[in-house]
Amino acid sequence: MIRMSVFYPASDGATFDHDYYRDHHVPLCQTTWNPVSATIDKGVDGPNVAAVHITFESAEAMQAALAHEGSAAIMADVANYTTITPVIQVSEVVA
Amino acid sequence: MIRMSVFYPASDGATFDHDYYRDHHVPLCQTTWNPVSATIDKGVDGPNVAAVHITFESAEAMQAALAHEGSAAIMADVANYTTITPVIQVSEVVA
Repeated sequence: MIRMSVFYPASDGATFDHDYYRDHHVPLCQTTWNPVSATIDKGVDGPNVAAVHITFESAEAMQAALAHEGSAAIMADVANYTTITPVIQVSEVVA
Repeated sequence: MIRMSVFYPASDGATFDHDYYRDHHVPLCQTTWNPVSATIDKGVDGPNVAAVHITFESAEAMQAALAHEGSAAIMADVANYTTITPVIQVSEVVA
Protein backbone atom coordinates (compact mmCIF):
# COMPACT_ATOMS: atom_id res chain seq x y z
CA MET A 1 0.00 0.00 0.00
CA ILE A 2 1.10 3.53 -0.79
CA ARG A 3 0.08 6.56 1.23
CA MET A 4 0.06 10.03 -0.27
CA SER A 5 -0.08 12.58 2.52
CA VAL A 6 -0.74 16.22 1.73
CA PHE A 7 0.30 18.65 4.45
CA TYR A 8 -0.70 22.30 4.84
CA PRO A 9 2.00 23.98 6.95
CA ALA A 10 0.90 26.91 9.09
CA SER A 11 2.30 30.32 8.28
CA ASP A 12 1.49 33.89 9.24
CA GLY A 13 -1.69 35.11 7.61
CA ALA A 14 -2.47 31.80 5.93
CA THR A 15 -6.11 30.80 5.61
CA PHE A 16 -7.69 27.33 5.45
CA ASP A 17 -11.41 26.54 5.13
CA HIS A 18 -11.77 23.21 6.96
CA ASP A 19 -15.47 22.89 6.11
CA TYR A 20 -14.90 23.31 2.37
CA TYR A 21 -11.97 20.91 2.55
CA ARG A 22 -14.06 18.21 4.26
CA ASP A 23 -17.29 18.76 2.36
CA HIS A 24 -16.02 19.49 -1.14
CA HIS A 25 -12.31 19.10 -1.85
CA VAL A 26 -11.53 15.71 -0.31
CA PRO A 27 -14.79 14.20 -1.62
CA LEU A 28 -13.75 15.45 -5.08
CA CYS A 29 -10.43 13.65 -4.66
CA GLN A 30 -12.25 10.49 -3.64
CA THR A 31 -14.68 10.45 -6.55
CA THR A 32 -11.92 11.30 -9.04
CA TRP A 33 -9.18 9.01 -7.78
CA ASN A 34 -11.19 6.22 -6.11
CA PRO A 35 -8.49 5.52 -3.49
CA VAL A 36 -8.59 2.73 -0.91
CA SER A 37 -9.13 5.30 1.84
CA ALA A 38 -8.78 8.97 2.67
CA THR A 39 -8.66 10.48 6.14
CA ILE A 40 -8.46 14.14 7.04
CA ASP A 41 -6.47 15.74 9.86
CA LYS A 42 -7.50 19.04 11.42
CA GLY A 43 -4.40 20.36 13.14
CA VAL A 44 -4.52 20.87 16.90
CA ASP A 45 -0.83 21.32 17.67
CA GLY A 46 2.25 21.13 15.46
CA PRO A 47 3.44 22.49 12.13
CA ASN A 48 0.37 21.68 10.01
CA VAL A 49 -3.03 23.37 9.87
CA ALA A 50 -4.49 20.34 8.10
CA ALA A 51 -3.53 17.23 6.18
CA VAL A 52 -5.06 14.37 4.26
CA HIS A 53 -3.77 10.82 4.01
CA ILE A 54 -4.86 8.99 0.87
CA THR A 55 -3.97 5.33 0.40
CA PHE A 56 -3.70 3.41 -2.86
CA GLU A 57 -3.12 -0.28 -3.54
CA SER A 58 0.24 0.42 -5.18
CA ALA A 59 2.48 3.11 -6.59
CA GLU A 60 1.12 2.23 -10.03
CA ALA A 61 -2.47 2.73 -8.84
CA MET A 62 -1.49 6.11 -7.39
CA GLN A 63 0.20 7.19 -10.62
CA ALA A 64 -2.81 6.09 -12.65
CA ALA A 65 -5.12 8.05 -10.34
CA LEU A 66 -3.03 11.22 -10.52
CA ALA A 67 -2.95 10.95 -14.31
CA HIS A 68 -6.78 11.12 -14.38
CA GLU A 69 -8.03 14.11 -16.37
CA GLY A 70 -10.01 15.19 -13.29
CA SER A 71 -6.78 15.90 -11.40
CA ALA A 72 -6.57 19.31 -13.04
CA ALA A 73 -9.86 20.31 -11.43
CA ILE A 74 -8.58 19.09 -8.06
CA MET A 75 -5.46 21.22 -8.35
CA ALA A 76 -7.50 24.22 -9.47
CA ASP A 77 -9.81 23.77 -6.46
CA VAL A 78 -7.02 24.32 -3.91
CA ALA A 79 -7.32 28.10 -4.22
CA ASN A 80 -10.95 27.79 -3.09
CA TYR A 81 -10.01 26.76 0.45
CA THR A 82 -6.47 27.84 1.27
CA THR A 83 -3.62 30.23 0.58
CA ILE A 84 -1.13 27.57 1.72
CA THR A 85 1.07 25.74 -0.77
CA PRO A 86 0.59 22.04 0.04
CA VAL A 87 3.53 19.76 0.75
CA ILE A 88 3.23 16.25 -0.67
CA GLN A 89 4.71 13.13 0.90
CA VAL A 90 4.57 9.68 -0.69
CA SER A 91 5.28 6.72 1.57
CA GLU A 92 5.11 2.98 1.64
CA VAL A 93 2.71 1.82 4.35
CA VAL A 94 4.65 -0.55 6.59
CA ALA A 95 2.66 -3.44 8.03
CA MET B 1 -10.35 10.55 17.57
CA ILE B 2 -6.98 12.18 17.91
CA ARG B 3 -4.00 11.38 15.70
CA MET B 4 -0.44 11.97 16.84
CA SER B 5 1.85 11.90 13.84
CA VAL B 6 5.60 11.81 14.31
CA PHE B 7 7.62 12.90 11.28
CA TYR B 8 11.32 12.36 10.62
CA PRO B 9 12.42 15.03 8.12
CA ALA B 10 15.27 14.11 5.81
CA SER B 11 18.51 16.04 6.15
CA ASP B 12 22.06 15.62 4.90
CA GLY B 13 23.85 12.80 6.67
CA ALA B 14 20.86 11.76 8.75
CA THR B 15 20.41 8.07 9.48
CA PHE B 16 17.23 6.07 10.14
CA ASP B 17 17.00 2.34 10.84
CA HIS B 18 13.61 1.36 9.39
CA ASP B 19 13.88 -2.25 10.59
CA TYR B 20 14.54 -1.26 14.21
CA TYR B 21 11.75 1.28 14.00
CA ARG B 22 9.24 -1.30 12.75
CA ASP B 23 10.41 -4.23 14.87
CA HIS B 24 11.24 -2.51 18.15
CA HIS B 25 10.38 1.15 18.57
CA VAL B 26 6.81 1.32 17.32
CA PRO B 27 5.90 -1.98 19.06
CA LEU B 28 7.28 -0.44 22.27
CA CYS B 29 4.99 2.57 21.74
CA GLN B 30 2.05 0.24 21.20
CA THR B 31 2.61 -1.87 24.31
CA THR B 32 3.26 1.21 26.44
CA TRP B 33 0.50 3.48 25.18
CA ASN B 34 -2.10 0.96 23.97
CA PRO B 35 -3.41 3.26 21.22
CA VAL B 36 -6.36 2.54 18.93
CA SER B 37 -3.99 2.07 16.01
CA ALA B 38 -0.50 2.82 14.79
CA THR B 39 0.68 2.82 11.20
CA ILE B 40 4.19 3.39 9.91
CA ASP B 41 5.23 5.28 6.80
CA LYS B 42 8.49 4.55 5.01
CA GLY B 43 9.21 7.61 2.91
CA VAL B 44 9.39 7.18 -0.86
CA ASP B 45 9.25 10.82 -1.99
CA GLY B 46 8.83 14.05 -0.05
CA PRO B 47 10.29 15.75 3.02
CA ASN B 48 10.11 12.81 5.45
CA VAL B 49 12.27 9.70 5.73
CA ALA B 50 9.65 8.05 7.91
CA ALA B 51 6.60 8.75 10.04
CA VAL B 52 4.17 7.05 12.36
CA HIS B 53 0.50 7.88 12.84
CA ILE B 54 -0.88 6.87 16.23
CA THR B 55 -4.57 7.30 16.99
CA PHE B 56 -6.22 7.65 20.39
CA GLU B 57 -9.88 7.79 21.36
CA SER B 58 -9.54 11.36 22.64
CA ALA B 59 -7.07 14.08 23.58
CA GLU B 60 -7.46 12.95 27.20
CA ALA B 61 -6.56 9.37 26.28
CA MET B 62 -3.48 10.63 24.41
CA GLN B 63 -2.37 12.78 27.35
CA ALA B 64 -2.84 9.86 29.74
CA ALA B 65 -0.79 7.62 27.47
CA LEU B 66 2.04 10.12 27.14
CA ALA B 67 2.11 10.53 30.92
CA HIS B 68 2.82 6.80 31.32
CA GLU B 69 6.12 6.15 33.09
CA GLY B 70 7.19 4.05 30.09
CA SER B 71 7.27 7.14 27.88
CA ALA B 72 10.76 7.97 29.15
CA ALA B 73 12.08 4.69 27.74
CA ILE B 74 10.38 5.46 24.40
CA MET B 75 12.07 8.85 24.22
CA ALA B 76 15.43 7.36 25.20
CA ASP B 77 15.04 4.71 22.47
CA VAL B 78 14.97 7.29 19.64
CA ALA B 79 18.78 7.52 19.60
CA ASN B 80 18.89 3.78 18.83
CA TYR B 81 17.42 4.20 15.33
CA THR B 82 17.92 7.76 14.11
CA THR B 83 19.92 10.96 14.31
CA ILE B 84 16.85 12.96 13.22
CA THR B 85 14.95 15.13 15.67
CA PRO B 86 11.30 14.08 15.30
CA VAL B 87 8.56 16.60 14.56
CA ILE B 88 5.27 15.97 16.34
CA GLN B 89 1.86 16.85 14.97
CA VAL B 90 -1.39 16.42 16.89
CA SER B 91 -4.61 16.49 14.90
CA GLU B 92 -8.29 15.81 15.20
CA VAL B 93 -9.31 13.02 12.85
CA VAL B 94 -12.12 14.39 10.68
CA ALA B 95 -14.80 11.89 9.70
